[in-house]
Amino acid sequence: MSASTATDVTAVVTVLATAAKKASRSLATLTTAQKDAVLRDAADAVDAAADTILAANAEDVSRAEIAGTEASLVDRLRLTPERIAGITDGLRQVASLPDPIGQVVTGKTLPNGLDLRQVRVPLGVVGFVYEARPNVTVDGFGIAFKSGNAVLLRGSSSAAMSNEALVGVLREVLTRSSVSPDAVALLPSASHDSVTALIQARGLVDVVIPRGGAGLISAVVRDAKVPTIETGTGNCHVYVHADADVDIATRIILNAKTRRPSVCNTAESVLIDKAIAAEALAPLMSALQSQGVVIHGDEDGMEPATEDDWHREYLSLDIAMKIVDGLDEAIEHIAVYGTGHTEAIVTKSLQAANEFTARVDAAAVMVNASTAFTDGEQFGFGAEIGISTQKLHARGPMGLTELTSTKWLVWGDGQVRPA
Amino acid sequence: MSASTATDVTAVVTVLATAAKKASRSLATLTTAQKDAVLRDAADAVDAAADTILAANAEDVSRAEIAGTEASLVDRLRLTPERIAGITDGLRQVASLPDPIGQVVTGKTLPNGLDLRQVRVPLGVVGFVYEARPNVTVDGFGIAFKSGNAVLLRGSSSAAMSNEALVGVLREVLTRSSVSPDAVALLPSASHDSVTALIQARGLVDVVIPRGGAGLISAVVRDAKVPTIETGTGNCHVYVHADADVDIATRIILNAKTRRPSVCNTAESVLIDKAIAAEALAPLMSALQSQGVVIHGDEDGMEPATEDDWHREYLSLDIAMKIVDGLDEAIEHIAVYGTGHTEAIVTKSLQAANEFTARVDAAAVMVNASTAFTDGEQFGFGAEIGISTQKLHARGPMGLTELTSTKWLVWGDGQVRPA
Repeated sequence: MSASTATDVTAVVTVLATAAKKASRSLATLTTAQKDAVLRDAADAVDAAADTILAANAEDVSRAEIAGTEASLVDRLRLTPERIAGITDGLRQVASLPDPIGQVVTGKTLPNGLDLRQVRVPLGVVGFVYEARPNVTVDGFGIAFKSGNAVLLRGSSSAAMSNEALVGVLREVLTRSSVSPDAVALLPSASHDSVTALIQARGLVDVVIPRGGAGLISAVVRDAKVPTIETGTGNCHVYVHADADVDIATRIILNAKTRRPSVCNTAESVLIDKAIAAEALAPLMSALQSQGVVIHGDEDGMEPATEDDWHREYLSLDIAMKIVDGLDEAIEHIAVYGTGHTEAIVTKSLQAANEFTARVDAAAVMVNASTAFTDGEQFGFGAEIGISTQKLHARGPMGLTELTSTKWLVWGDGQVRPA
Repeated sequence: MSASTATDVTAVVTVLATAAKKASRSLATLTTAQKDAVLRDAADAVDAAADTILAANAEDVSRAEIAGTEASLVDRLRLTPERIAGITDGLRQVASLPDPIGQVVTGKTLPNGLDLRQVRVPLGVVGFVYEARPNVTVDGFGIAFKSGNAVLLRGSSSAAMSNEALVGVLREVLTRSSVSPDAVALLPSASHDSVTALIQARGLVDVVIPRGGAGLISAVVRDAKVPTIETGTGNCHVYVHADADVDIATRIILNAKTRRPSVCNTAESVLIDKAIAAEALAPLMSALQSQGVVIHGDEDGMEPATEDDWHREYLSLDIAMKIVDGLDEAIEHIAVYGTGHTEAIVTKSLQAANEFTARVDAAAVMVNASTAFTDGEQFGFGAEIGISTQKLHARGPMGLTELTSTKWLVWGDGQVRPA
């Protein structure tokens, strides 16, 4: 049998996950000062190893170019001295963030004298499955480590050399700091088998967070036997209410679509109230088209839309546009086609804003603001590991706190429970 | 094809789940006063229908007796006028609890003037899978409804008539109150197919909570495509530290084992520190044996233990007992054999108490207190739907708040995000 069979890959993942589980128990009791020192040492060590890391990355880039990989993907894969500086700045920033571990969430003294506290604890072992960008390798370690978790990283095979170089540096720093190096491990990336092994490692892995396209996320959620957090898919709508300020609507939609079309908080669909269509449609279409946006819809001057367009997460300079007959139809459309990421209304009516925010079911609901604001950094989290579109455990941008659980501590002096 | 094929059952569950999803959207916007009025009406209606409910229950009980069902199971199935009063008292109590929906969890004004709030919202559609007790049918509805969720109930086939009578009353009350009756539905219980359909209804069901034995829970977690919350399995340990007060240790272990042996917070294993074994073992064994407890272990006077005994959740008057060589071995034993429910230490040493609570990974960790205190009512939640032994979303006793999610509301006046 060759080293790449599914059985062998599963065995490798199990060994790494078992070691991570063991390491996670000691991480849970590190002090904040100890963790921050490791994170700053790791930043220095990555800076110091920049040449080695860049050389490894050059091999990945060269392999990708020879394989004829799309230029935008090669760009995401490529490291530069500036990007390495960005990575190590990120580690230092995480070191400076407040530590969620040990925080007392709630507590009280019960009538029988028992002292009850709910305190934040790490999840244990966190798995990340992600795509080409090697910076996620270090970001993922930083956020997981600060929140007291061991982390299993399953990056893209296209970044294998870069990731090995980066994780090698991180493991050396941990060893030097007398922390188990198994607190971070890189899983094999040659096949999907390591993803399958990771998401089925019950008892070893506490949560898996897939970061990537809809296909990856749904495969992970479908086959997982461990808890997962769905991230990212965003079919975000902007609804231009009958009582909207058309200038504000235009500015918001333009920003939400064109600022960074490839990210999950970009607007993919515009709903225009019938009552304001005559006034709003022309300036809105003209503003979007002047920025090169292709509009899909049923009106003149649009690319004819099919049912598929209402579902699409284009992630490009395309947007779907539909005229709706009032607030109820807008909310109903969003309920049917939205992905629960971010939904926005533009209106001057307080009642419409209240109804929209109360009735629309999404991680973030915006009134007169760009969907681009759904972002951990914008919300003031300091670091973000993704945007959850599920309702359990975490919803919306996820920071350090979202990588924690809680534990109840009950201190007494011999209390027993009456029959 | 007969009406009981898996395909037909799946179709029925899909219809009920689709209707529940639709109903859940209107539940999310009910006021607390509206919900509390429905819950009080439901209590009155169940009281008024007591005769019909008792007659239906008598059929279930008679069927169970004819089938030779164990007496303790028949007892759990049986309703009496007193038990119906307990059920309706429960509904009135839930009506009197604070409503978690709409609570602002956190919030702030961002530098750009955006007003950011994280507010509590319902999960949407909650599925409960449970066993014989018909009171869970009404409790489950009450807790789900108060927290703004629709609920799909999959009870035991042995309680089918009782559950139909109860859910019939609840749906009538909803209709009378102009709330969609689809906010509560009873799933077919003749086969496991309805459980499978429920836990695979992605997009319709937001969470499934299995309440029952380890077999049910692991089957649900293994086959689920929707998020689940593991509940209940408790292999709870009491560790008698070298520096324990033996009288307190004895009192706690006796209470934790014998108060209600069949519940998940009962103590199943005692770990005795070698340093105190000579002093503690005899009085502890004698106290337990005088209450009819069978002790499984390696010492004289115990039933010889096998590896299996360290894993067992006896739920009976049996307990495993092991002598360990210090705190580290106790913590290691618990890490290997514990189920993450409740673990306790008896000690006078502050340092040992601190180490134990920091290093033991469980939903509840007790110092000098009985494991029997892990309970929503004891913690002051007012109502409990189970005890989560997983780390994601909810850990420990679950009340109304654990059936909620959150949503970010972002209010602005035209803000866009800079490039």
